[in-house]
Amino acid sequence: MTFWNFFFNNKKTNSTKNTSTKILIENLNESRQQLDIYYSTNKDINLYDLEQLCDAVGWVKRPIKKVKIAIENSFLIICIFHYKENKKNLIGFARATSDESFNATIWDVVIHPDFQGKGIGKALMQETIKQLRYHDISTITLFADPEVIQFYKRIGFITDPDGVKGMFWYPI
Amino acid sequence: MTFWNFFFNNKKTNSTKNTSTKILIENLNESRQQLDIYYSTNKDINLYDLEQLCDAVGWVKRPIKKVKIAIENSFLIICIFHYKENKKNLIGFARATSDESFNATIWDVVIHPDFQGKGIGKALMQETIKQLRYHDISTITLFADPEVIQFYKRIGFITDPDGVKGMFWYPI
Repeated sequence: MTFWNFFFNNKKTNSTKNTSTKILIENLNESRQQLDIYYSTNKDINLYDLEQLCDAVGWVKRPIKKVKIAIENSFLIICIFHYKENKKNLIGFARATSDESFNATIWDVVIHPDFQGKGIGKALMQETIKQLRYHDISTITLFADPEVIQFYKRIGFITDPDGVKGMFWYPI
Repeated sequence: MTFWNFFFNNKKTNSTKNTSTKILIENLNESRQQLDIYYSTNKDINLYDLEQLCDAVGWVKRPIKKVKIAIENSFLIICIFHYKENKKNLIGFARATSDESFNATIWDVVIHPDFQGKGIGKALMQETIKQLRYHDISTITLFADPEVIQFYKRIGFITDPDGVKGMFWYPI
């Protein structure tokens, strides 16, 4: 019943930038225990929960104020929640910037270490692609650390197509 | 005098997404002829002029309607105009998507073939970086075709830092 309440309590907006539909991704069987994993594209997330999630994977701390601006100006936000004992916990996150027409770039993909290796990251990426494709965005890009390149390749991402190189500029 | 008129005729807005400041980049000497090259960050550009510019470098034609949406949803637009005989011609263009906080990605960098090799592309990129840095964006990214990788390297862009790879997903 909790889940249905959760469905109904969330407001829907007309903005493509802030939809709040929530769909059950998977019930994962894990040693007889069922995990209830939902995703949300609602931007109104608890930034401290996100900070805690990023801390759990060892990311460098970022000012909450800057994270807030980044989320507001992202085209797409996807959060993954785990429901347990009537509580929802943020266990996954991804966002994308976009021109809402041709291109999108995915940033900040994270799955809590306790939930890695269960196919949740793959589900998160597939949902991200689905959402971007729904908006007819054909070029979906990201910048992958060496240890996750194979993960993205399995989802269908390719490196350096026709010699095109991802390039970075950082302040000196 | 034309130039001053041009300055005053352009409206200023409060939005960071649509500033219309115009600054002289360079007066380039070319066989005793002076070229007056200006840039603009005003999004209110003639989309047919942009199409003509992209045609001149042989880019695949894109629907004007989609280009319009992409420009509206870009964080930064930079146009380069050449002034000649009281007429302004669009000879350069670049745009960037951004979360307006951490990251930006530069797209659609183009200089008209007649104006290539004069340092205008470099000036365009330096101005793009300057504008993004003004907004405290520290990670500036782009995807470079093989033939322009050296150009971007000279400006300070690097490929695959710490093994980070630019990756692409295209619809099958």
